[in-house]
Amino acid sequence: MDAEKDGKGGIDLEFMGRQARAAALVLAGLDSPRKNALLMSLAQALDEALPDILAANAEDVETARSQGMSEGLLDRMLLDEKRLRGIAADVRCTAALPDPVGTVMDGRRLDSGLFLTRRRVPLGVVAAVYEARPNVTIDIASLCLKTGNAVILRGGKEILHSNAALVGVVRACLEKAGLPAACAQHVNSPDRALLMELMHMDAYVDMLIPRGGEGLHRLCRDESSIPVITGGIGVCHIYVDARVDADRALPVIENAKMQRPSACNSVETLLVHKDIASSFLPRLAARLIPLGATLHLDPGAEVALGGAYPSVPVREGDYGKEWLSYDLNVRVVSGLDEALEHIRIHGTAHSEAVLTEDLAVAERFVNEVDASAVYVNASTRFTDGGQFGLGAEVAISTQRLHARGPMGPEALTTWKWIAHGNYSVRE
Amino acid sequence: MDAEKDGKGGIDLEFMGRQARAAALVLAGLDSPRKNALLMSLAQALDEALPDILAANAEDVETARSQGMSEGLLDRMLLDEKRLRGIAADVRCTAALPDPVGTVMDGRRLDSGLFLTRRRVPLGVVAAVYEARPNVTIDIASLCLKTGNAVILRGGKEILHSNAALVGVVRACLEKAGLPAACAQHVNSPDRALLMELMHMDAYVDMLIPRGGEGLHRLCRDESSIPVITGGIGVCHIYVDARVDADRALPVIENAKMQRPSACNSVETLLVHKDIASSFLPRLAARLIPLGATLHLDPGAEVALGGAYPSVPVREGDYGKEWLSYDLNVRVVSGLDEALEHIRIHGTAHSEAVLTEDLAVAERFVNEVDASAVYVNASTRFTDGGQFGLGAEVAISTQRLHARGPMGPEALTTWKWIAHGNYSVRE
Repeated sequence: MDAEKDGKGGIDLEFMGRQARAAALVLAGLDSPRKNALLMSLAQALDEALPDILAANAEDVETARSQGMSEGLLDRMLLDEKRLRGIAADVRCTAALPDPVGTVMDGRRLDSGLFLTRRRVPLGVVAAVYEARPNVTIDIASLCLKTGNAVILRGGKEILHSNAALVGVVRACLEKAGLPAACAQHVNSPDRALLMELMHMDAYVDMLIPRGGEGLHRLCRDESSIPVITGGIGVCHIYVDARVDADRALPVIENAKMQRPSACNSVETLLVHKDIASSFLPRLAARLIPLGATLHLDPGAEVALGGAYPSVPVREGDYGKEWLSYDLNVRVVSGLDEALEHIRIHGTAHSEAVLTEDLAVAERFVNEVDASAVYVNASTRFTDGGQFGLGAEVAISTQRLHARGPMGPEALTTWKWIAHGNYSVRE
Repeated sequence: MDAEKDGKGGIDLEFMGRQARAAALVLAGLDSPRKNALLMSLAQALDEALPDILAANAEDVETARSQGMSEGLLDRMLLDEKRLRGIAADVRCTAALPDPVGTVMDGRRLDSGLFLTRRRVPLGVVAAVYEARPNVTIDIASLCLKTGNAVILRGGKEILHSNAALVGVVRACLEKAGLPAACAQHVNSPDRALLMELMHMDAYVDMLIPRGGEGLHRLCRDESSIPVITGGIGVCHIYVDARVDADRALPVIENAKMQRPSACNSVETLLVHKDIASSFLPRLAARLIPLGATLHLDPGAEVALGGAYPSVPVREGDYGKEWLSYDLNVRVVSGLDEALEHIRIHGTAHSEAVLTEDLAVAERFVNEVDASAVYVNASTRFTDGGQFGLGAEVAISTQRLHARGPMGPEALTTWKWIAHGNYSVRE
């Protein structure tokens, strides 16, 4: 494309949409072995293109660093040999996943005599708008190809070179396999006007997946005329019941907070039953504070800790915060009811856990908490496509329509009803 | 509510949203017998309130007639004893349907040792915006209650009195059962500003179902920040292959066009293989024209009919029209490829049928046509929740996300992932 052609860097989204729609038709006709062979060749091509990809990524990282990007964000956009080989290995894993396309969901003979089945088919064209994380480019592209969907990718502006290199490898593989390169397209421009235009391409795009901060999700919900899957915002809770094995509960909380605080499935608020607060909280503080945690205490928790450990008071708004850091709100509650009420008010329907030995408490928690994933005696960190046995994931949905929780291959499909009659008419 | 309070007839949608959310929590906790008992009592209450409902409806019909509404639309909004008893009978059928809520979709032991299941739960709060058809009010309300969802109804302004009476009956039943009346709410105002406000209540409403013309669907896609299910627009096709049993094909086409042309699953365009056009089309014309059909012929069909029957030429744009009348486009095609291409360009992904004796043609048609429902040797008229064995339907989705085709109880649910561990941590 001619980069000087117009104000949008020569990018004609309408043309891309038409190309994607045509490519989706071709992809929908592919059988699983052919799609899996394509993914295996992609994995190999990524390995082979390693020097070029790393060079492109180094350019992006250099620019971002010179513009003052934080080390945390730089680390998220950085590719090195190990990470890129990991990405290629993930593509091989995706190839090995079962293909939902073509499976028959259910079927029956109707009273009218028709034989009716429901068959899974690809969604069609998927668009993804995401942050400066080059691994997401290949995750989403490979899952879309696995499920016969064309994809339009628009990653963070900081990784334009990395994405151009990565999507270039995907497109070369497609062409080598005799498939349209337009099965995978990249909006190679940081222009925000293009993002706004993309959100209105419902004539060509069947699903829009935003990944990133709440602002992007809000923008997509408000602006997009394409069905949107929002998610990935996690204000997750753990309720520690009075009847708990404290020795075994502590490592779960440590795992949920400290293992990877930047993940959306990390815990942000601990709700502790009042009957155990004064015995449990000092042990928690003794364990987490040396690891770098900052505890934000409600008055009840402050009393329970008795000033023996450094802490800060919970401030207004803290319960609604996704800390994405080693910060943890701690609140003492009178029991399960108050914990459920807190989660109803402050939760984001992502991942919620109860730690208890009490069957009735566990069952009420499971039944009454409204979230994508509800845990009994487990860390919230398990909410993940890989952990759930789905293979990779394109996103974690916290909305209720279409997909909820980790979105694996099935979430990239829809179905058609197929009915066989005998020159049948409706009475 | 005080109707003089403000410019929106005293209606506080934000308040309604909060009430609906609270009511949904109560509904989500009900077991199937209690929900079914509620529906049975609703059916009885509808029977008992018959005089009041018919009186309210008569008032609406009177007003609409005096304002010059067409007989066709008047008929759609009219309730009489037989129709109202039919609506009550449908509620009893809905009560008898299996309840998807609480069913376990799948489950497994994960490598981490967690036991993971996926359990169906209600969506939460459903809003429906629909035309002047009072039967839809009870269809949607009863399906929502069946599946534990709170519902906010906004029917056509022409049936405000009918809907106030019908929803009044639903709310009285809810209260009698000790449930919040806010499980079913009615936007009792024609104010368009309220519709716009409703479309942005994503904090309270989980799914918006528009039913009506393309304008309303477009408006919802463009404006709504709530996930929308669009559908109900059907430009449906029948492809008549060269190898067809013409004697048996003719009744299928008659059924698809003439039985109820105002339905979205009626056929609008017939695609006929060139090899049989000159034998088949005269028989079609001889059968349908006396019944009142108007044939819109492409040049090939005109030649095949040889001017022996009254007809009009197909005009630009006709192939994209949902006639909703006894009009039928007829086009002669060179074969399956041209038929598939025509459907790709002009179809609305609703219902498409092939009439053929040729297995290979049938299989290619099923595999390559992208539509909610694809038929082999059957009328497109079967696309319907009742016909598909789903019981009632809230709408027919022609989009790909969440639900496709007739939307029965399952389409009003989502799921939560439930994981049981043993103080499990993620490695």
